[in-house]
Amino acid sequence: MNIAILGTGMVGRSIAAKLNELGHKVVMGTRNPENTLTKDDKDAYGNAPFKEWYGEYPQVGLQTFAEATRDSDLIFNCTGGQVSISVLESIGEDVLDGKVLIDVANPLDFSQGMPPSLSPVNTDSLGEQIQKRFPNLKVVKSLNTMNAQLMVNPDLVSGDHNVFICGNNESAKTLAREILVSFGWRDKLIIDLGAITNSRGTEMLLPIWLRLWGALGTAEFNFHIQMN
Amino acid sequence: MNIAILGTGMVGRSIAAKLNELGHKVVMGTRNPENTLTKDDKDAYGNAPFKEWYGEYPQVGLQTFAEATRDSDLIFNCTGGQVSISVLESIGEDVLDGKVLIDVANPLDFSQGMPPSLSPVNTDSLGEQIQKRFPNLKVVKSLNTMNAQLMVNPDLVSGDHNVFICGNNESAKTLAREILVSFGWRDKLIIDLGAITNSRGTEMLLPIWLRLWGALGTAEFNFHIQMN
Repeated sequence: MNIAILGTGMVGRSIAAKLNELGHKVVMGTRNPENTLTKDDKDAYGNAPFKEWYGEYPQVGLQTFAEATRDSDLIFNCTGGQVSISVLESIGEDVLDGKVLIDVANPLDFSQGMPPSLSPVNTDSLGEQIQKRFPNLKVVKSLNTMNAQLMVNPDLVSGDHNVFICGNNESAKTLAREILVSFGWRDKLIIDLGAITNSRGTEMLLPIWLRLWGALGTAEFNFHIQMN
Repeated sequence: MNIAILGTGMVGRSIAAKLNELGHKVVMGTRNPENTLTKDDKDAYGNAPFKEWYGEYPQVGLQTFAEATRDSDLIFNCTGGQVSISVLESIGEDVLDGKVLIDVANPLDFSQGMPPSLSPVNTDSLGEQIQKRFPNLKVVKSLNTMNAQLMVNPDLVSGDHNVFICGNNESAKTLAREILVSFGWRDKLIIDLGAITNSRGTEMLLPIWLRLWGALGTAEFNFHIQMN
């Protein structure tokens, strides 16, 4: 498939590398490709400059958000949650209409101090806001409840653990499920919560995820819903 | 121990029954004991009237919130999260000072429709509000992330799954941990998140808990943090 990855941070890189390995034609989207390729400094999380990573993936493209998306069959939103809507607006409804978007972003709000809070939250969510703003885009919320490496390599954590999906369009969820299975997720461990309103629930896992990261001293863990 | 259970709903009943079985002297607190004992109708969740349950536990007491708390060594807050602060204010700081309170309540807000949202949320939490309002009360947030039966009988769900604790007072957390172990929780499955600010994280599990209840068709499940 032709797949656009919006965002060049750790989540975008992790998903792009995996999809490239799986034989998809991957184009990453960024605001200004030239700027993204010339930056020499580490990002806020201490990750290497994009160009170092990018040099190892000659088949992966890098274009503006709009160019990367134009010919895509599937879009991953890996932008920061506070800018996702404006990034999608810069692409435009005409390009997005009818496409499937897997929304991996969390609306982390660093303005209230650390650890970040969420905005929107509680009576709304980023997944819902994207779906509302682009009614003909088929939004599936998924993968936003774990660290970037685990998303595409669930065996990094042994045993059973879950990934959630939700969205209003069944065929889009079927596609998302197929992509997750290709990442290594066993089908029985993919929990379909229902409509996109359920992204409130998965985004609100972030506060405890961040606190568990501190309490456990590792980001290599995941939620498992244990039942009989 | 002398243990006060604030609230006579399903959570209060479940914890009272278990503590009674374990040999503690249990007194339940309610706004007006006479009213609580005369009500004939089922509650909003379809549970039997309190007096039916109460008839099976002759050793358990029923008094006003303040009377139940006065001689207690330990308090469980099992009141509705929207009224917890006012219930505690009706007891008074002089009675609460120095005691340990295990806060099991969630600030579910039904005013925005179903499923309920949370208030406070995100940049505050009920656990923190109680601790802030009663600085000499030793608040431990725990057990609020699962259904009432599972709280006191973790083996209802097979395999490994977790219960969280957080709070500012270490000796109070040690007591809470001992009580949890007496309920059947294996010590290694009790995750100490740290200070009471972490109750933001555990209370924010409720939105996905409620949605999983719908998606899975059962309340007999629990969160397990899977790691290597």
